[in-house]
Amino acid sequence: MTNPPDVIRAAYAELIVTDLAAARWFYVDVLGLVVTAEETDALYLRAFEEYLHHSLVLRKGKTPALARLGYRVRDPRELDVAEKYYTELGVPVRRADPGATLGIGAAVRIQDPIGFPIEFFYDATHTERFTQHYHLQPANAISRLDHFNVTVPDVRSAYTYYTNLGFGASETIEDDEDNLYAAWLYRKSTVHDIALTGGDGPRLHHIAFSSHERTQVLHTCDMLGALRAENHIERGPGRHGVSNAFYLYLRDPDGHRIEIYTTDYYTGDPDNPTIRWDVHDNRRRSFWGHEVVPSWYAEASTVLDLDGNPVPISSPERRESLVSVGADGFGTALEGADEKGFKLGHQA
Amino acid sequence: MTNPPDVIRAAYAELIVTDLAAARWFYVDVLGLVVTAEETDALYLRAFEEYLHHSLVLRKGKTPALARLGYRVRDPRELDVAEKYYTELGVPVRRADPGATLGIGAAVRIQDPIGFPIEFFYDATHTERFTQHYHLQPANAISRLDHFNVTVPDVRSAYTYYTNLGFGASETIEDDEDNLYAAWLYRKSTVHDIALTGGDGPRLHHIAFSSHERTQVLHTCDMLGALRAENHIERGPGRHGVSNAFYLYLRDPDGHRIEIYTTDYYTGDPDNPTIRWDVHDNRRRSFWGHEVVPSWYAEASTVLDLDGNPVPISSPERRESLVSVGADGFGTALEGADEKGFKLGHQA
Amino acid sequence: MTNPPDVIRAAYAELIVTDLAAARWFYVDVLGLVVTAEETDALYLRAFEEYLHHSLVLRKGKTPALARLGYRVRDPRELDVAEKYYTELGVPVRRADPGATLGIGAAVRIQDPIGFPIEFFYDATHTERFTQHYHLQPANAISRLDHFNVTVPDVRSAYTYYTNLGFGASETIEDDEDNLYAAWLYRKSTVHDIALTGGDGPRLHHIAFSSHERTQVLHTCDMLGALRAENHIERGPGRHGVSNAFYLYLRDPDGHRIEIYTTDYYTGDPDNPTIRWDVHDNRRRSFWGHEVVPSWYAEASTVLDLDGNPVPISSPERRESLVSVGADGFGTALEGADEKGFKLGHQA
Amino acid sequence: MTNPPDVIRAAYAELIVTDLAAARWFYVDVLGLVVTAEETDALYLRAFEEYLHHSLVLRKGKTPALARLGYRVRDPRELDVAEKYYTELGVPVRRADPGATLGIGAAVRIQDPIGFPIEFFYDATHTERFTQHYHLQPANAISRLDHFNVTVPDVRSAYTYYTNLGFGASETIEDDEDNLYAAWLYRKSTVHDIALTGGDGPRLHHIAFSSHERTQVLHTCDMLGALRAENHIERGPGRHGVSNAFYLYLRDPDGHRIEIYTTDYYTGDPDNPTIRWDVHDNRRRSFWGHEVVPSWYAEASTVLDLDGNPVPISSPERRESLVSVGADGFGTALEGADEKGFKLGHQA
Repeated sequence: MTNPPDVIRAAYAELIVTDLAAARWFYVDVLGLVVTAEETDALYLRAFEEYLHHSLVLRKGKTPALARLGYRVRDPRELDVAEKYYTELGVPVRRADPGATLGIGAAVRIQDPIGFPIEFFYDATHTERFTQHYHLQPANAISRLDHFNVTVPDVRSAYTYYTNLGFGASETIEDDEDNLYAAWLYRKSTVHDIALTGGDGPRLHHIAFSSHERTQVLHTCDMLGALRAENHIERGPGRHGVSNAFYLYLRDPDGHRIEIYTTDYYTGDPDNPTIRWDVHDNRRRSFWGHEVVPSWYAEASTVLDLDGNPVPISSPERRESLVSVGADGFGTALEGADEKGFKLGHQA
Repeated sequence: MTNPPDVIRAAYAELIVTDLAAARWFYVDVLGLVVTAEETDALYLRAFEEYLHHSLVLRKGKTPALARLGYRVRDPRELDVAEKYYTELGVPVRRADPGATLGIGAAVRIQDPIGFPIEFFYDATHTERFTQHYHLQPANAISRLDHFNVTVPDVRSAYTYYTNLGFGASETIEDDEDNLYAAWLYRKSTVHDIALTGGDGPRLHHIAFSSHERTQVLHTCDMLGALRAENHIERGPGRHGVSNAFYLYLRDPDGHRIEIYTTDYYTGDPDNPTIRWDVHDNRRRSFWGHEVVPSWYAEASTVLDLDGNPVPISSPERRESLVSVGADGFGTALEGADEKGFKLGHQA
Repeated sequence: MTNPPDVIRAAYAELIVTDLAAARWFYVDVLGLVVTAEETDALYLRAFEEYLHHSLVLRKGKTPALARLGYRVRDPRELDVAEKYYTELGVPVRRADPGATLGIGAAVRIQDPIGFPIEFFYDATHTERFTQHYHLQPANAISRLDHFNVTVPDVRSAYTYYTNLGFGASETIEDDEDNLYAAWLYRKSTVHDIALTGGDGPRLHHIAFSSHERTQVLHTCDMLGALRAENHIERGPGRHGVSNAFYLYLRDPDGHRIEIYTTDYYTGDPDNPTIRWDVHDNRRRSFWGHEVVPSWYAEASTVLDLDGNPVPISSPERRESLVSVGADGFGTALEGADEKGFKLGHQA
Repeated sequence: MTNPPDVIRAAYAELIVTDLAAARWFYVDVLGLVVTAEETDALYLRAFEEYLHHSLVLRKGKTPALARLGYRVRDPRELDVAEKYYTELGVPVRRADPGATLGIGAAVRIQDPIGFPIEFFYDATHTERFTQHYHLQPANAISRLDHFNVTVPDVRSAYTYYTNLGFGASETIEDDEDNLYAAWLYRKSTVHDIALTGGDGPRLHHIAFSSHERTQVLHTCDMLGALRAENHIERGPGRHGVSNAFYLYLRDPDGHRIEIYTTDYYTGDPDNPTIRWDVHDNRRRSFWGHEVVPSWYAEASTVLDLDGNPVPISSPERRESLVSVGADGFGTALEGADEKGFKLGHQA
């Protein structure tokens, strides 16, 4: 079998938005992303510590959707590796010329086995890193793109696909019968580049950006309240059990979900322990025991295939949202956790 | 009419708890309050910047209840003023000898016209202020008691009682028909010493302590998650619309509600504007639009009379929780707010 | 003897600046103060939680100076009290008509016995409080004016003047021979409205503004570094021993010193203990033991009399900067502190 | 030429301390490091997010010194690679049996070409990661070891040695004549695993630990002030120009320098730009323009060879501390920086 391409990290997403001005308000005016380039029908944005051309493309279209998730590979030669690897896997594979996406060099685009439109690239236009441009940084400054989170009906098979691609598993949500409800997978030395969330899919659950400190996350909430736009806050802020990160989930004007995320942990050693969470431990998604709002489990963005058509949706056999909530409508605390072998920080 | 006593501020509360060891775990081990004194059936606690003997007394009893709210007056002579004032009001009034409560000097105890057991005192034992004892301060260090919040069936009459007592009104929740759902009233130059929350009462809604910064509030959540005691978190953390403070509501092992509160604003000028919030503005209680959990509106602590018997409860005519939630079960955003004359920061 | 006027708090300062554009850059672009009004030769600024017209006036002039310190009194009738009080004290007293300073009502202006141009007023134009205008607040948002700090050759007599005026003493720096090197005095329930610093005077040492949290103070440093204007940072950030506040000292383009200050403590009870610091305890001015930079002790702003002429300067007998530094040029740690009766938090 | 061993990251340091109780006070009681194991003459410590046995060993000895810097390699087979590589380089190389250092498996120890005692290892005992043990975490909790900083007389040759070993260069301090005063080099995707500081060497300049947020760094200062141990604070807190991290330098009871460090940036992409700082830009070491204290340039810890004997010291030709400070004793601002081609964020 051919080696998989050597992926460095989650690098950019391209979202289809229906109202570019509304999207600009949300991503630029509220979230403070930096505009690298602007076209009639597209915005190319980056965060303050990024030096590649963009980590987010907003492109005007008729229906909100995910057009592409971009992974950066270690070397231009990895494009050939990717082409060969995915051709052998039997999924659609296309070469994209430099500039097919503004600021991105030669690329290989595929529809991956779990249904997502993925681009691999190495070359990209460099821009100035605004790390120390504090005079331009708002109180909710975002540092960089951190990860993607996708909804899939079969987490186990998606997990296998990604670990074959060379991703490590930092954390999972499981049950005693070996069902896998969610998984966090990484290439760079953070908790994840991609998370797999069980549910109707393939769909994009969210894109996450990192800030340095928690008060920066809180300020986004305060801004949205001040602007009477607090309805863009879907869930949080709070502390994740999984990843230990401090989080906030927003919905953009088209309903795309954006997470602001901070202070997860280092995973760069080869023996980094995988942490398994019991699906019944109500601290797994909110370490403070807060109920997950129903929309967070139910709603996600349509994904497009390489021709720009919506990818059909399948449903999972089991849903975490049903398994983890008792008859009273509340999450269940984990009784006798230590005896069952699942616990906080249980390391496989 | 006699002058009312010159109250400085909310000074201490005495709670009846059923399990003193459990209460000690919550208030000392988790919240980090300092133990000034300990008796077989009582704990006397203070926060890190307080120099009076205590701001919280936990006393063992058979049923959880509020035994007393203590206000400090400006001078020992104000006790005579208080005795005369409340005698004229026709409510129960008793003198308490120095030491009737450990650490507290001579006092006047009354059952106030809205049903609460109140103590006025000036003299109290001084202790060391631990403001700069940073080696003893946990990551969630609490600075001082900030305010009381009580549930009353008739907010308007309670408001009149307190403004007659010389309290200023910083903020209110109202509707267009002049119904008053809640009010925040102060003597010291913060947003409140006492808040009035409409509901079945008289009951104690909560006692609030101040920390300096938001990360200290967040750490309490993290600790409770770490201890698998996240069920003690009832609501928040979040930002209040009213008061602008960052908040967290906890329930102690007996169900008493404790708020951790930070960064409200200065109210010490005589013309400090009263801010009126429309009961339909869903940012009034959570500036980020979060729904208030039902228990927060429904549950509160029994209050005792001067003989230690529970005070009977009455119900309000209107409930904020019903008025502010639409048929869909969600709070209503404030449409046309500017036109209606209610808005963020509307100053009477 | 006539009663002194009932002062509420330090309310505003008027500074003479030589380049209004440069001053605007510093106070508006960098520090983020809100412009209430602008005239050809003056700027009227306030912080985000202030509702009076201004807390700082910048007026163009030929030489940098302090033109006026404004105290707010409790009631318009206190102006008569002030006029009588200062007339009896035998210092220059003048009535100012409403609008003599834009936004300020009727006032009494005096040159106080220690040489400073002071204005007492009650009436002032109200503006909108931007407390919750988070969309306008930079990462270094300032909440309100906190205090003035003045340099005087004879701290003891200035202390007597201010305590006669009804100010409480929160903290002092002293030695064993009863010399008083500095004092912190308050009317509002914070550590101070005015601080007295021994040195050549009368001069204005600094004006201090409050922020809510320490990260807001740090951001001002980061901004100044980003703008290559780090030379405006004179001292700090750090933690004061006195007041326990987190501090930063800046110099504006004319050399006026501005402090950004956060999280001191409540002083509103009548028996608030005065904390005495030994002049040899090197934690008194920096709790972390950092040396005070020489300019901080030596430099200050000229003050003007009621006719706009510079007030002559006298020198003190003893200088804290000399007393507290040993022959090696370093501050001395406090040996045997507990035995000498001076210590952290020693309460008189 | 043989390939160099594949280093993952800076993993642990072993320091010789003269008083183990004093060292325990500093590292455990003040800094809050977790004790994994304790022997009569040694302490094995780790930070809250570390799962290997230790990141710091304190071993009792007669003279303070650095005994060893440990790098973790990607695989046990890299030990053979290391042995071969350093044997070819002609430096002392020894095999260490598992357990030669408690908790560490088989290792290769060398004295590297620039004079430091280095250990390469892969196997190590796993312990519990205390990432979410918030109930045990103090307000100044440390997450993990971040980097080493060593003083060398010839930065250029040390730079060549480390880049040959496969380290990337994130930032440098240079002048127009191509002199290299300092360099920051990394394997893991942070700004550095090792920094090279020009000066008398080989000596250990400092070991740095990471915290998540700046307030955690500040709390260490507050604790040291509270404990009257503020003399352990040598420099900072402040913001570095290089690395952009927020820093604090402490000296332990033996004079070893410890940095607490937070929020640098991601360097994991192969084309991560190297940032070159002009030695005359006074923001390079303090972004806020603060002077570096003389001891920080002059003092460092003796390093031992593989037999435990002190390694002789050489001096550099040029010293950054002399080059960057003008005749007036102050650092020089960078005039005409943009024209000279050096500037903030200048990317090679």
